[in-house]
Amino acid sequence: MSNLSIADIVQAHRRIAPYIHETPVVESSLLNQWLGHEIYFKAECLQTIGAFKIRGAVNVVTKLAETDSLPKRIVANSSGNHAQAVAYAARLYGIPATIFTTQNVSSVKAAATESYGAEVRRFATRAEADAAVQEASQEPGTVWIPPFNHEDIITGQGTAAFEALMEIGDVDSVFAPCGGGGLVSGTFISTRALSPKAKVIGCEPLNANDAAESRRKGSIQSLTETPVTLADGAATPAVGNITFPYIQQLDGFFEVNENDIAYWTQWLQHLLKLHVEPTSAMCMGGVVEWLKQQSEPKRVLVILSGGNISEASMRNIWAEDHLSRVPSL
Amino acid sequence: MSNLSIADIVQAHRRIAPYIHETPVVESSLLNQWLGHEIYFKAECLQTIGAFKIRGAVNVVTKLAETDSLPKRIVANSSGNHAQAVAYAARLYGIPATIFTTQNVSSVKAAATESYGAEVRRFATRAEADAAVQEASQEPGTVWIPPFNHEDIITGQGTAAFEALMEIGDVDSVFAPCGGGGLVSGTFISTRALSPKAKVIGCEPLNANDAAESRRKGSIQSLTETPVTLADGAATPAVGNITFPYIQQLDGFFEVNENDIAYWTQWLQHLLKLHVEPTSAMCMGGVVEWLKQQSEPKRVLVILSGGNISEASMRNIWAEDHLSRVPSL
Repeated sequence: MSNLSIADIVQAHRRIAPYIHETPVVESSLLNQWLGHEIYFKAECLQTIGAFKIRGAVNVVTKLAETDSLPKRIVANSSGNHAQAVAYAARLYGIPATIFTTQNVSSVKAAATESYGAEVRRFATRAEADAAVQEASQEPGTVWIPPFNHEDIITGQGTAAFEALMEIGDVDSVFAPCGGGGLVSGTFISTRALSPKAKVIGCEPLNANDAAESRRKGSIQSLTETPVTLADGAATPAVGNITFPYIQQLDGFFEVNENDIAYWTQWLQHLLKLHVEPTSAMCMGGVVEWLKQQSEPKRVLVILSGGNISEASMRNIWAEDHLSRVPSL
Repeated sequence: MSNLSIADIVQAHRRIAPYIHETPVVESSLLNQWLGHEIYFKAECLQTIGAFKIRGAVNVVTKLAETDSLPKRIVANSSGNHAQAVAYAARLYGIPATIFTTQNVSSVKAAATESYGAEVRRFATRAEADAAVQEASQEPGTVWIPPFNHEDIITGQGTAAFEALMEIGDVDSVFAPCGGGGLVSGTFISTRALSPKAKVIGCEPLNANDAAESRRKGSIQSLTETPVTLADGAATPAVGNITFPYIQQLDGFFEVNENDIAYWTQWLQHLLKLHVEPTSAMCMGGVVEWLKQQSEPKRVLVILSGGNISEASMRNIWAEDHLSRVPSL
């Protein structure tokens, strides 16, 4: 089992600091007034490439550079934020990058990835893309950067909570979304060191609840079908063998339904004036459930993972009117 | 004719600085790459109450406080950002505020206004609300704060461009939306002083182009019907006698169609990761037209007015897919 510590997070932060934004921690006074608690949001939607994923990818590549181990080529399989993160990190060091994805990748995400200088190869199915990246990674001088199941990815992602807790001090709980588990694992390591009494809590779409199932069964469970969820960043079919032990140690875990995901995406966009993606807003479903169990006013930190949203997703988010019902506990 | 100067803007800034956010100036590296110019955005959507309107309202009330002239009651007529701005400014000094609006005011805007402590009175029609505020303003000890046609409102709104130009230095042009003209008038005064060679350009919805018509005819023209436009913050039926002389001096003025307003709202939300309202994004329609006429790379400042968007408006903004067409000149 992986034995990462806050020292690894600090090293990752030192390594990536020149290349990333130290994103702001924001609040909504109206939301705090309505809920009767203080909620702080780490706004990774304002991060380079629009998501926390750049932290892990830059950490991996910069660590390779530090040991003179830069490859001739970098490959990755992703249709989302990880693709942009890898493209961006590779370009920092002038290394050609190839992203293996499916034909239905959103045009706007592919355009952004290509703007960062990567080649995007489209395959009919996810399985074919995965097979192709596997094959490409066997070429000499090639490094395959996985999206979450890698120690340097985990410590990179953990720098978001690290920055936030260094800025705002002790909190009572920290919430992060869980897809493959890279972000929530890194958040766990940072929080245990910087705010030891804080509960660290993961959130997942109810429609893609493989991590919750894995926690209940004590072993990694996989989704058998492609999940239908607004929170596409947390639709990963299974967590990894490196992230799972961290996910098991979390102090709580919430499964959030689609109605609550849409509700909180509308409200966070409206209150924070940030283009918050559903995967990020999802955590508020868990926050509200957790706050209902508390008897004292609490300080809560939420890691907002990003803000890359397709137009189809925006249409779905805003299909119903959730703003007519003001948030309350 | 009003003879405001940069000295009045500086005084306004000194007055309101303790109560407002100095909002960030942001850029999109992808947008700059695609257009081949540098576009800077003053993000007033991140301002207190989610819009620049707080600047003018706080300036008016704080100036009254400085001369021991605070009223017993403040009234205003608005269904939008000005209502929230007046409510917020009145609360700063513990003065009861009443907002006169129509029954179809969006519930979310009314809730925010009431959260800032104001009473919201709803009337069947705009005309009835306007008559009621007129009557209420005759009561002894009452001050009516107008939304734009007031010198202290204009200098307050001008502090947004003032902050931005102090931060980023000389630019080639500054764009601001024009509703009643308070923002664009203040922007004109600040820009002439801080970046004298810069063109100051107003933008208006083609569907509510009373200011453009007024410029063409040399006298204030009013809309005869309620305009249908996504850019509701610029749907004001007529500019004011104090703002019009500034509007006449602008170096350019663009009328933007609804398709372009939706296009740029989608793209600015996506690229800046900010909840940018259509009235703000509208300016990009003018920016692109202006850039097409330029032969050298330019530095452009856009004042993003705010981020208060009803759910119905969000649905309309995202009804069609504009993200499939990448911005270009």
